[in-house]
Amino acid sequence: MFQAPIHYTPKNPDFLKLIHEKVTRQHFMHHNGFELTKIEPGYIECEAKLDEHLTQQDGFVHGGVTSTIADLVTGFAAFSLVSKDDRVVTSDLKVSYFHPGKGDKIFARGWVIKPGNRLHYCESEVYVVNNGEYKLIAKGTAIMAIIEGKNKEIEG
Amino acid sequence: MFQAPIHYTPKNPDFLKLIHEKVTRQHFMHHNGFELTKIEPGYIECEAKLDEHLTQQDGFVHGGVTSTIADLVTGFAAFSLVSKDDRVVTSDLKVSYFHPGKGDKIFARGWVIKPGNRLHYCESEVYVVNNGEYKLIAKGTAIMAIIEGKNKEIEG
Amino acid sequence: MFQAPIHYTPKNPDFLKLIHEKVTRQHFMHHNGFELTKIEPGYIECEAKLDEHLTQQDGFVHGGVTSTIADLVTGFAAFSLVSKDDRVVTSDLKVSYFHPGKGDKIFARGWVIKPGNRLHYCESEVYVVNNGEYKLIAKGTAIMAIIEGKNKEIEG
Amino acid sequence: MFQAPIHYTPKNPDFLKLIHEKVTRQHFMHHNGFELTKIEPGYIECEAKLDEHLTQQDGFVHGGVTSTIADLVTGFAAFSLVSKDDRVVTSDLKVSYFHPGKGDKIFARGWVIKPGNRLHYCESEVYVVNNGEYKLIAKGTAIMAIIEGKNKEIEG
Repeated sequence: MFQAPIHYTPKNPDFLKLIHEKVTRQHFMHHNGFELTKIEPGYIECEAKLDEHLTQQDGFVHGGVTSTIADLVTGFAAFSLVSKDDRVVTSDLKVSYFHPGKGDKIFARGWVIKPGNRLHYCESEVYVVNNGEYKLIAKGTAIMAIIEGKNKEIEG
Repeated sequence: MFQAPIHYTPKNPDFLKLIHEKVTRQHFMHHNGFELTKIEPGYIECEAKLDEHLTQQDGFVHGGVTSTIADLVTGFAAFSLVSKDDRVVTSDLKVSYFHPGKGDKIFARGWVIKPGNRLHYCESEVYVVNNGEYKLIAKGTAIMAIIEGKNKEIEG
Repeated sequence: MFQAPIHYTPKNPDFLKLIHEKVTRQHFMHHNGFELTKIEPGYIECEAKLDEHLTQQDGFVHGGVTSTIADLVTGFAAFSLVSKDDRVVTSDLKVSYFHPGKGDKIFARGWVIKPGNRLHYCESEVYVVNNGEYKLIAKGTAIMAIIEGKNKEIEG
Repeated sequence: MFQAPIHYTPKNPDFLKLIHEKVTRQHFMHHNGFELTKIEPGYIECEAKLDEHLTQQDGFVHGGVTSTIADLVTGFAAFSLVSKDDRVVTSDLKVSYFHPGKGDKIFARGWVIKPGNRLHYCESEVYVVNNGEYKLIAKGTAIMAIIEGKNKEIEG
């Protein structure tokens, strides 16, 4: 239904395999039911069934769920473009909430809007889906920093 | 250990009771183990034990956990200052990530920096705690919009 | 060359006249050479010749010029959609800088991405233009708050 | 009146001289009347007389003036901490506007809140001053990226 707004050539041809490996260790994703549903160079889609554990006191999607899915799609979109031994960490995440969300599932898509040697600027859209109808509830921006090198420690 | 940077007089003397009621229906909070540990007018503290389900693939706190706790403390801080029948929704949430986090627990504090009739501007700090030592890993800002009136529907 | 991404019906059919009036009193715009070049409901284009007074120490567009033009296009885009006696003020402005800019002129376009009763969420793109070629140097988001009523004072 | 919230040891003992040199070539600053009034490692103060050319249509400080002064104080605060041949560029600038501003002058202070090898996270406060009384009208955050090396070109 949606398409990547920009097409990239990945530096690491094995990015798909690496993302699948990472996802298995993404405990917060699994604990809350998020799944990646499309993985392309610089572009990611993700969704979760909107069970009660993702809601706040009025039955709407929790603000933290929306920011989490925005972080997931932009983080993996950025990671899909880095070199073999590099990683990414979130430097900055911002989400504008347009509507409270209720529905069958939450869906988000994220992409790299401006790749760089050290920073990947990213964007995201978050939707709720009701009977197959998509409603945009939030848009986000993110800055993902590239950590170079297999042996380089992330500054703890 | 920490103190509220600004002291406010709440419009609703029963804000504490209302927050306790709301928290019982905050399913996403409970599912992930977040607890409010201090509730004052315009100021909130929150924490969660850093069990594996709050981590990402390298064992660090997930970016979505950090943004969630930043949303929780600023959302409740804003709510503590509104009138009896009013609610708040997150309009905008931004988090800057200073360090990857590892530790025994995650802790955050949030406050209203500029209250208004329609918008409460808020700030937050997020820490990881190791053997009682607090390390600042992120700072956030949030804009919380006030929804007036008991019977007024949140635009869905 | 560019087109409005979303088409709106203005609440005030005289929005164009009102914007032209406002612009005459926009001293900071004139002092620095900014001109609105397209005004449509919810969509604005603006540009300035890149004379030396808009640059910083290395000859690039000053960061404040970029944030100013992002504020201008989103502020007027939001204003074009309000009712006759309403005004808008900037609540929040954010700019991501993709490239340092050099060129003949700076150009920006801004639009309302999600209109509301109280807040208009807006987006902007900023370009430098060299020999007719447009290069995207920044993207921005803005939240514009609607101040209702002719006689209502802006809280000073 | 104000003090730096954090004290740093500069990497380059000549940072003060370098900033004075840079300022002479900051054409946008001079064209609009901004002056640095305090320069310390990681901390900057700046002000401008609020003449008509800094205002918008209702006589208030222009939103672009506020974002410009927020960029200036955080950019120079970041620059004061880098090594001899390094420079900084703004990666991301965000300003929350608390009040419309009117007064004799505009004043801002900015500081590095979290220095890094590649990014300096910064914060700012913007005030209007009336008869010596300071009123906070905006707060900002900025991410300043460090460009290493004398001969390294800024990617244009």
